[in-house]
Amino acid sequence: MSAPIALPAPDALLTDFYQLTMLQSYYEMGMEETAVFEFFVRRLPEQRNFLLFAGLEQVVNYLETLRFSQDELAWLHETRKLDTDFVRRLEHFRFSGDVHAMPEGTVFFPDEPVLRITAPLPEAQLIESRLINILHYQTMIASKAARCRLAAPGKTLVDFGLRRSHGAEAALMASRADYIAGFDGTATVQAGQRFGIPIVGTMAHSFIQAHQSESQAFLNFARSHPDNVVLLIDTFDTRRGAEKVVNLAKSLNKEGISIKAVRLDSGNLIELSAAVRGILDRGACEDIAIFASGDLDEYRLAEIIAANSPIDAFGVGTRLNTSADAPSIDCVYKLQEYAGQGRRKKSIGKSTWPGCKQIYRQRSTSGLFERDLVTLASETLIDGEALLVPVMREGRRITEPETLERIRERSSAQLESIGGDLSSLATNSTRYPVEMSKELEAMVEKVDKLFSGD
Amino acid sequence: MSAPIALPAPDALLTDFYQLTMLQSYYEMGMEETAVFEFFVRRLPEQRNFLLFAGLEQVVNYLETLRFSQDELAWLHETRKLDTDFVRRLEHFRFSGDVHAMPEGTVFFPDEPVLRITAPLPEAQLIESRLINILHYQTMIASKAARCRLAAPGKTLVDFGLRRSHGAEAALMASRADYIAGFDGTATVQAGQRFGIPIVGTMAHSFIQAHQSESQAFLNFARSHPDNVVLLIDTFDTRRGAEKVVNLAKSLNKEGISIKAVRLDSGNLIELSAAVRGILDRGACEDIAIFASGDLDEYRLAEIIAANSPIDAFGVGTRLNTSADAPSIDCVYKLQEYAGQGRRKKSIGKSTWPGCKQIYRQRSTSGLFERDLVTLASETLIDGEALLVPVMREGRRITEPETLERIRERSSAQLESIGGDLSSLATNSTRYPVEMSKELEAMVEKVDKLFSGD
Repeated sequence: MSAPIALPAPDALLTDFYQLTMLQSYYEMGMEETAVFEFFVRRLPEQRNFLLFAGLEQVVNYLETLRFSQDELAWLHETRKLDTDFVRRLEHFRFSGDVHAMPEGTVFFPDEPVLRITAPLPEAQLIESRLINILHYQTMIASKAARCRLAAPGKTLVDFGLRRSHGAEAALMASRADYIAGFDGTATVQAGQRFGIPIVGTMAHSFIQAHQSESQAFLNFARSHPDNVVLLIDTFDTRRGAEKVVNLAKSLNKEGISIKAVRLDSGNLIELSAAVRGILDRGACEDIAIFASGDLDEYRLAEIIAANSPIDAFGVGTRLNTSADAPSIDCVYKLQEYAGQGRRKKSIGKSTWPGCKQIYRQRSTSGLFERDLVTLASETLIDGEALLVPVMREGRRITEPETLERIRERSSAQLESIGGDLSSLATNSTRYPVEMSKELEAMVEKVDKLFSGD
Repeated sequence: MSAPIALPAPDALLTDFYQLTMLQSYYEMGMEETAVFEFFVRRLPEQRNFLLFAGLEQVVNYLETLRFSQDELAWLHETRKLDTDFVRRLEHFRFSGDVHAMPEGTVFFPDEPVLRITAPLPEAQLIESRLINILHYQTMIASKAARCRLAAPGKTLVDFGLRRSHGAEAALMASRADYIAGFDGTATVQAGQRFGIPIVGTMAHSFIQAHQSESQAFLNFARSHPDNVVLLIDTFDTRRGAEKVVNLAKSLNKEGISIKAVRLDSGNLIELSAAVRGILDRGACEDIAIFASGDLDEYRLAEIIAANSPIDAFGVGTRLNTSADAPSIDCVYKLQEYAGQGRRKKSIGKSTWPGCKQIYRQRSTSGLFERDLVTLASETLIDGEALLVPVMREGRRITEPETLERIRERSSAQLESIGGDLSSLATNSTRYPVEMSKELEAMVEKVDKLFSGD
């Protein structure tokens, strides 16, 4: 398993235009003192009891490599929307700040800062759009994939979502997030190349259709891929497909080729898998596994598992990689402190907790998560595990990138610690306790007195 | 307005692994005769009456530039999952086929092939995953954006969706799709650079929060951006924010600076916009427009318009660029003909219409769309406009890329031709008539006789 390879840095212009207009003003006003921004989720989607953090590695890579190219600067200049001196200054733009974050694969809850940026105000501001864009998607997908993992313990789960993911980057990042959350592989070849995730795949319906007969298609494929014989049996009639597999198994055995699995991709998977298992077992093909795909998600997986279906492995695609029941999460990146003073937004329904913060997680005697306490970072002697750890200092990474395997192990251990209520697919009526420290509450009052908005 | 600039070609490995295993078998069996694949939608999402086609330009670019790099081939070889000779042959892989498609900005319906590939089977097969990945997302977003456009006639609409789009490519492609469907601009700077889409943006809440007072923040921004003064007034209290704008307007006028607009981003937009309009008008600021954002989509836009709200412009983000009420569309790319014979899939709920097809659109005397007829491409003398036109021949583009402005004009004309029932946000109980020709129905019978699956 190789270390995760970062994606090429996206262009610096992958940002909202208001970041550039604000930057110009900050530079003009000399507002370059230290700012603290925090990324957090305001509220959980209705169908989630927890979230699983992913995407940090791509954020660090973005911050390390963020530069404006000459082409980008020339184009910005041509727009005539910004001052020439400002555009010129962007040539030297670098991110020189500090980053604290939860490690990837950590379970977290609303109102908890997952990542904190401490940097001169213009730097901390410019990165907002892309930082949210990266963390929002991977965290959303890892959280959905974790539900699939919890719904199908012991089953093999494979990411099948490339085609209906929202673009190229979504497909790749979903493979990564799915794997972090406990998936076993992906069909997306590039995710194998870039992240070392095991790749899986055999045949589509078109392969069967292009042949004159289904049996001939099976035979041709088996001879061409003797070590990877997974046969798709639902193109015409699933039960007859299974019968053909039984017949074929005997002759292939003589050639030294074993059929590993059959795949079902349509119809009632519970009924069909039982029928197919029966046909295979009666035909002395007990070793052939059943792989299923088609409109799966955690709810469907739970139904199939509850029905004691003999399906061994699942390809999960569209609903997973679009997070279909919650295709966005209400996450934000907010200014919490500037020039040493806490700052706060009071907009209706969108008010924030000011100040530079830390989270302490407390566990029960059996090791389950019991309660999180959000404190000011300056508070000391708090019980529990501090969740935010240093990641970058003065614009440089201070630890080696974690391997996906390490992150995956952490995620697995975290999912074992969340307890039955939170790990069920149903929405837990009692939300996990996230409490604010007294010093943090005192900070709110202090900031409100200082900044009445006038 | 410059011609649309294509994105860099994605790597050839952005595909499902089964495409490569099938390709190896096709080469080994010598199955390289001509195949016809068609991309189409199986059924509309519940909340859509029509779809708007987008993404063709990126598909053409992908097909023109598709190559395996030496690095990719070396990695494939290392996986030991494919034959050495096969991997070596991929070095010379090129797409040499023909493409027919509807022009971008065309309205279409389920069961209509939107794009047709005619190429040697291995070439037509390999491209499936990325082709669907491109067309699915842009078409889904253009279709959602078209509903926003129809819901808010005459209003300025701006794409605000970068941060919660699913990754970098989704954000960029959404800007393009939104603009095609009639949006007026985007906040995403890179979409301005790459596609020439007008960019829009001024300030975030953090800009206000970083100042000691809201009024000072407004003043600083106005002086720094005298031609682009749009002030965000909801950080503390929206009505008081509007009053400060009135006071500021007078002094700024003396400096020769006009405030263009105020922006609301929270609370009840209908109530607040009425209150703000009153405050501005009473303060002799009738020329200051109102810009609103925050959790908008076509349903919310329709409510605001129905309430006669004085909002002039809208920033629409997350719900649009994730297509929140329908984050995927059931679209597929299917083998319809191989070696001159129609082919068909009969899987439960997923059966297909065989053969190489064309669509003819017939209009009423008033010019509204009345009925589409799907025929075999070989049928002639059919009434109506043929929707599929040649785009590539033998792997090369045969016409210049269309400008986004041209596509946007087509889209606008199409949206005017769909008629009131289909253009309403409510799901139309009568679906638009898409009929199959008799020759196409005869083809189904013929294919079913030839290919019983045995």
